[in-house]
Amino acid sequence: MKKGKTFIISGPSGVGKGSVLKVLLERRKDVYVSVSATTRQPRAGEENGVHYHFLDVDTFHEWIAQDAFLEYAEYVGNFYGTPKRFVDEAMAEGRDVILEIDVQGALQIAQKRPEAILIFIAPPSWSELERRLTARGTDSTEKIQKRLLRAKVECQTASAYHYFVINDTIENAAGELNAIMTAEHCRSMDRMEIIRD
Amino acid sequence: MKKGKTFIISGPSGVGKGSVLKVLLERRKDVYVSVSATTRQPRAGEENGVHYHFLDVDTFHEWIAQDAFLEYAEYVGNFYGTPKRFVDEAMAEGRDVILEIDVQGALQIAQKRPEAILIFIAPPSWSELERRLTARGTDSTEKIQKRLLRAKVECQTASAYHYFVINDTIENAAGELNAIMTAEHCRSMDRMEIIRD
Repeated sequence: MKKGKTFIISGPSGVGKGSVLKVLLERRKDVYVSVSATTRQPRAGEENGVHYHFLDVDTFHEWIAQDAFLEYAEYVGNFYGTPKRFVDEAMAEGRDVILEIDVQGALQIAQKRPEAILIFIAPPSWSELERRLTARGTDSTEKIQKRLLRAKVECQTASAYHYFVINDTIENAAGELNAIMTAEHCRSMDRMEIIRD
Repeated sequence: MKKGKTFIISGPSGVGKGSVLKVLLERRKDVYVSVSATTRQPRAGEENGVHYHFLDVDTFHEWIAQDAFLEYAEYVGNFYGTPKRFVDEAMAEGRDVILEIDVQGALQIAQKRPEAILIFIAPPSWSELERRLTARGTDSTEKIQKRLLRAKVECQTASAYHYFVINDTIENAAGELNAIMTAEHCRSMDRMEIIRD
């Protein structure tokens, strides 16, 4: 049976990861997109197990103690983490897994799971990223400048990534992601057994 | 400008490399398929520069002396080689290059050009390869058995290849080749400069 693989997708805020993944998932129905666990309160419309696995702080710490996370971090007083279990279950079923996480989380996972494939989605240019962040209309100019600075720092640390997908158009970027997933399943290491038969 | 890459495609006789490449080239019009040089006589219908670059033995030896081949070999008294020049010209124009050569030639090139991507096209099974070789109707049973044995030896030495494409159907195999070519252009090493800008 085909074994599932883990694809980690990162990229600066505003680069369009969500839109690219949406198009990709229309083409690859069988992919499991990892749902993070968090200790923050659900917002209106957020469902447990769909948007997040909502945990209380004690349970989150228990999971940490049980080594039940592939990575975790704290942001402004709340914990966020990637539960191992659902990822491993999906892969055991032969499904590919996509984790959309930040660079720090990705590098944590890469240490535990060196076979994971790291893909960085980059903007075609900084000015275009600024344009997209401004077009969203959700952030102040100051906040946009902060996001841009953070994006530049992230791109510097992204040298550990295996692939860079440039999101010039959503179609192109989704096509490249799709190709990377197909190509990774053609790796000789994985297929050696088939060939030897 | 996008830089061209070299993709080396090998696989046992009868596996269907020609058919797969034909479908691939319909999707990738801009690929340069390398034309070998040979000292053997042209057969009816073979055009110089299209099917082969036909060279006399002296010229072939001159090219060897000038290090003008990426690889060369002798088969039953004739020389065959892959001229560097056309490959390098195509890549300089930003075109990808496909070289369809045997495992020995591929390994020669891999030493000179470690950045070349090696793809091995494998049959879905030995019995299927035997069926295909028989269906061609061109070889005796004895010759088919020789080809099968050679194919098994080739598969053993194919561990140096980066990718294995299994030709279960021509469409699938061409799709995987196409995905590998797209994915290889997303490699972070190549795109680092773009990201840094």
